Amino acid sequence: MYYIGIDIGGTGIQAGIVDKDGKILYRKECATDVENGFDKVMEDINILVRSLLDENNIQMKDVKSIGCGVPGFINKKGQVTCVNLGWKSQDFINTLQSKFADVKVYAENDATVAALAEAKVGSMKGCDVGVMYTLGTGVGGGIIINGKVFSGAHNMGSELGHVIVDSNYYDCSCGNNGCLETFCSATAIIKYARKLIQEGKDSKILSLVNNRLDDITAKHVFDAYRENDEVAIETINRFKDYLAKSIAAIINTIDPEVISIGGGVSRSGDIILDGLNDIIKKYIVFKDEEFADIVIATLSADAGIVGAAFLS
Amino acid sequence: MYYIGIDIGGTGIQAGIVDKDGKILYRKECATDVENGFDKVMEDINILVRSLLDENNIQMKDVKSIGCGVPGFINKKGQVTCVNLGWKSQDFINTLQSKFADVKVYAENDATVAALAEAKVGSMKGCDVGVMYTLGTGVGGGIIINGKVFSGAHNMGSELGHVIVDSNYYDCSCGNNGCLETFCSATAIIKYARKLIQEGKDSKILSLVNNRLDDITAKHVFDAYRENDEVAIETINRFKDYLAKSIAAIINTIDPEVISIGGGVSRSGDIILDGLNDIIKKYIVFKDEEFADIVIATLSADAGIVGAAFLS
Repeated sequence: MYYIGIDIGGTGIQAGIVDKDGKILYRKECATDVENGFDKVMEDINILVRSLLDENNIQMKDVKSIGCGVPGFINKKGQVTCVNLGWKSQDFINTLQSKFADVKVYAENDATVAALAEAKVGSMKGCDVGVMYTLGTGVGGGIIINGKVFSGAHNMGSELGHVIVDSNYYDCSCGNNGCLETFCSATAIIKYARKLIQEGKDSKILSLVNNRLDDITAKHVFDAYRENDEVAIETINRFKDYLAKSIAAIINTIDPEVISIGGGVSRSGDIILDGLNDIIKKYIVFKDEEFADIVIATLSADAGIVGAAFLS
Repeated sequence: MYYIGIDIGGTGIQAGIVDKDGKILYRKECATDVENGFDKVMEDINILVRSLLDENNIQMKDVKSIGCGVPGFINKKGQVTCVNLGWKSQDFINTLQSKFADVKVYAENDATVAALAEAKVGSMKGCDVGVMYTLGTGVGGGIIINGKVFSGAHNMGSELGHVIVDSNYYDCSCGNNGCLETFCSATAIIKYARKLIQEGKDSKILSLVNNRLDDITAKHVFDAYRENDEVAIETINRFKDYLAKSIAAIINTIDPEVISIGGGVSRSGDIILDGLNDIIKKYIVFKDEEFADIVIATLSADAGIVGAAFLS
């Protein structure tokens, strides 16, 4: 039996045929035609899946399920709202289900899907209660309870990036102020390093980007951190402090077995994990007790396809 | 079949014989002999339970389980740590189980037990995912998932009172700064009203306590709020703002069906609920979606016995 996982992003759609062990056997992608709207994207997915099957001589009858990770909110009716794609309460599940009549279609938020992949075959494998942070352009979250995706009563849980953790000097894209995303995303790291430099602090980051502040990436900041650059140290320490505060809140609330950190920022996992447990311990209540293992995600970009394939 | 629920508090221990519907049929209490230590309290519970059964002509063989709500932390080994009772990793479950050889003994944190009672027969009845806040001297929390107590992988979840929500002008009894408990407990309300008065603000609260600042209770502050007293309004609005922030974080994370507010402070539930949803909406991410019902707990002091009886 095969499982199809589809990872819908703002620029591209990736589809994979996955086996029961989470191995991607075949894959294919297409662009996300945002401009032509929801129906066009749905039809593109239909074509993508059918050609992926055809090219690999696999029959639809041998496909158990089609799962999708979407970069937005899916309500209990299967309607998707996604700012990046310009979708507002689009009838996602029903539309896609009508194109694949005999195969069950599932969809979940992309960060949740990534958490499921990590729980099934990655850094949280075998865990009963796990939480994943995806630290990228934004901050996403996924919660696993009893080995399954947990998204709450209205499917709007695990939005860890939009939990308010403090007041901040710029507003979040969601309209609120103080969201974790404005402290712990790649965007937040870039903005804060740039702010310190604009305030007059000298930094090795400047030479890394030939003085073009708009070119700063999170990687530049982590690279400068390794060179003991003061701006980078202040930026990364601030990032780690808020990440630890958020993790401590999760421990005080859900107390998971494992907390996995993924997304682009996690490529500097060695710096993130260094001393992180000590900061977390400052903010949790039971300081003498064993708490969650904090680990770096292992599946990287494939987590979207693999996790979607595991939806059921 | 009968179920015994035991509510262990800092001053008294209450035991009840409860039927399968959560009705307390018989009850008895004794003082908590904190001074004479853990073993004495365990033996007092033994005596209390046996005399409660004897006095009501009920045989131990007709008792299905004995559940205890304890004002502290219980680890997966059944050891209890409780600052108020001076207990550090006391072997609670094994000790009590040895006294009641034929009946299964359970224990959970008291706020968690109260949440279970509300989920079984109170304000969260029938809910699949529910969260309860107990706002008293401190702030406790209880989480229900799939209709059962959820305390996480190391049993230290649902400590909602010790999630850090901001920095505050005084430290929490746990040693941290900024715990929800220092914003939303009765103690926090009293301290803040007193602080405003000590800073020179006039208030009707003063006449309610004959100018004795040490006599202020949370009820005085709520009473003065009803009289449009400025100090009370500032104090209660601050309390509600932080409660809403914490509830919004819970919605963004766990997204429960119902959130119930209990504890002594909840006796002013009308004031707490008035406008609360609008403040919560400010802090959640999906503002147009339906979110948890916020309700006031209904079982009050009996929740401890009833919830403990439902432990299994």
